[in-house]
Amino acid sequence: MARLITLLMQAAVVAVGALTGVSVAAGHGPLTIDAQGSFFVGGHDVKSDVLSTIPNFAPEGTISVDQVYVHYQIPSGSRKAIPLVLVHGCCLTAKSWETTPDGRMGWDEFFLREGHPVYLIDQAWRGRSGGSPVPINEVKIGNARPDTLPAYISAGRESAWEIFRFGPKYPTAFPNMAFPLQAQSEFWKQMVPDWSYSMGTPNPTVPALSELARKIGRAVIISHSQSGIYPFQTAEMDPTGIAGIVSIEPGSCPRPDVDMRPLKGIPTLILFGDFVQLSTAWTRRLDDCKAFVKAASAAGVPVELVQLPDVGIHGNSHMMMLDSNSLVVAGWLNRWIANKVGS
Amino acid sequence: MARLITLLMQAAVVAVGALTGVSVAAGHGPLTIDAQGSFFVGGHDVKSDVLSTIPNFAPEGTISVDQVYVHYQIPSGSRKAIPLVLVHGCCLTAKSWETTPDGRMGWDEFFLREGHPVYLIDQAWRGRSGGSPVPINEVKIGNARPDTLPAYISAGRESAWEIFRFGPKYPTAFPNMAFPLQAQSEFWKQMVPDWSYSMGTPNPTVPALSELARKIGRAVIISHSQSGIYPFQTAEMDPTGIAGIVSIEPGSCPRPDVDMRPLKGIPTLILFGDFVQLSTAWTRRLDDCKAFVKAASAAGVPVELVQLPDVGIHGNSHMMMLDSNSLVVAGWLNRWIANKVGS
Repeated sequence: MARLITLLMQAAVVAVGALTGVSVAAGHGPLTIDAQGSFFVGGHDVKSDVLSTIPNFAPEGTISVDQVYVHYQIPSGSRKAIPLVLVHGCCLTAKSWETTPDGRMGWDEFFLREGHPVYLIDQAWRGRSGGSPVPINEVKIGNARPDTLPAYISAGRESAWEIFRFGPKYPTAFPNMAFPLQAQSEFWKQMVPDWSYSMGTPNPTVPALSELARKIGRAVIISHSQSGIYPFQTAEMDPTGIAGIVSIEPGSCPRPDVDMRPLKGIPTLILFGDFVQLSTAWTRRLDDCKAFVKAASAAGVPVELVQLPDVGIHGNSHMMMLDSNSLVVAGWLNRWIANKVGS
Repeated sequence: MARLITLLMQAAVVAVGALTGVSVAAGHGPLTIDAQGSFFVGGHDVKSDVLSTIPNFAPEGTISVDQVYVHYQIPSGSRKAIPLVLVHGCCLTAKSWETTPDGRMGWDEFFLREGHPVYLIDQAWRGRSGGSPVPINEVKIGNARPDTLPAYISAGRESAWEIFRFGPKYPTAFPNMAFPLQAQSEFWKQMVPDWSYSMGTPNPTVPALSELARKIGRAVIISHSQSGIYPFQTAEMDPTGIAGIVSIEPGSCPRPDVDMRPLKGIPTLILFGDFVQLSTAWTRRLDDCKAFVKAASAAGVPVELVQLPDVGIHGNSHMMMLDSNSLVVAGWLNRWIANKVGS
């Protein structure tokens, strides 16, 4: 039965791909890589005398914080498509862009097979980007009050269900919603606790992204949800190296009265999935983004807002990179990038 | 000058490789991958009513903890070498096995180019393997006393310097020590805070490794430092799928009176670097491992302990996978695996 469902889903992907004229990267056959590896951007030193509360490690010392881990792969071949930087959202890591919970190819590999150098990051203080135990240890040893502990939160699946628009209320799904719910237990494992709500604005990931963009030279920054606004903040800091912005269902768009000048030369897409009108929170965010797009367009920014159902792609949740039609969405996006940013 | 040092180091790597008869994988030319991706092993659900202390997220809900993130690459080609599972040590993530701080190829790519499927994990509650904010939030909201906060520690570079045997005391290095200290600021960025000292024995990474070994079917588990003992604990749980054990400078070896039966069919290597005799802590650990090896050998376990200087490889710190001669060490290890475990 599970196998039959998988086959039906694959057929549906191909069918939708045919309908929308999107070429779906095969995902079959070997992948040839010219270079791969990892490095850090950003970060600075912090000294403390409460790094440790156990005898194995000294309490005094210096650590690095606010750095951002970057993993990259550069494909072989003559097609040299533009580099992409993929930035995950709240309570997640770069795992968002890899193998889907039901075992299909992630966007990382799809775009690689389409010729793009792909850069995946873990946001500062999350995943492989280390943080600091100091605010916790100050409380543990009595130097600070318990209420000074940072906001350190996990999104439980019951509340994430609504935020991710799997359905109106856990565990009920929207009809024809495309997230592979049969694999949800694998999906919940990719969620991690999140410090970012006690980290100030902009998040330290933003200057690190700016350093990365300047290092790559010319890249499209693709952000999602919590990180949706980061590419805009990065461009505001320094537009160098930012060839395009794709903000997928941003938690917030820039305000309409923001300085639009740094964005003027940057092709920008704000992309929403399906079922937005069934969520009060997402309807409000969509409206805010529409207000930004209107103001930005008037100021000469090449920006557009697309809701996937309007281009014939249906059923997408907030986690569109993992939905059963994830490669249809990626194919559409790849075409947008080729048309609007070029190669 | 930095460029000259790099060139001299590269020349030294080639020279040492020639001396020890080790083939150093070229690391040049494209890499062809049959499959790559990521998934989780282990993990279980936890319900709580203190997941969040901010209005954006509900305090009540269910999260998954103790799961272990696994990233894999399977090389193309006719040589089908045995799969390797690489397990990092304290205060680190799988980044340990990737690009070195000075930008050379990591062990992950070296072994891939030698034909091994390579599996990298982030230990439970670290990196992309999510933990729980509950013990912190219980204190923040006044449900628990500050001294119940978990031991959550960072190793400052000053104390890590001695543990990693870069030298006798920060910032003095041992003469001819091979860690690329000119790139140390990049290295310190890969260190992360570590919950594991409040997580009990065995660490939840161990049952997850057992699940992974059974899933792969036949693999060599390569552990390091804090995780040094994990493959032994995994085999004790169930030897299925464990084709070999390589424990690099374990923080502790099994006790000599442990039940040796699960280890009997498993070729095992315990590997130490250089300068051990200059560190009291490491001399003690080496002695403990020698006692284990003696008892295990007497019980018929195919185990050996090797100190790299005794096989003509000199200068290695505790972070031998990142030292300037890291690929010489990897080449020697690759030959040990081929000879003792087979393909």
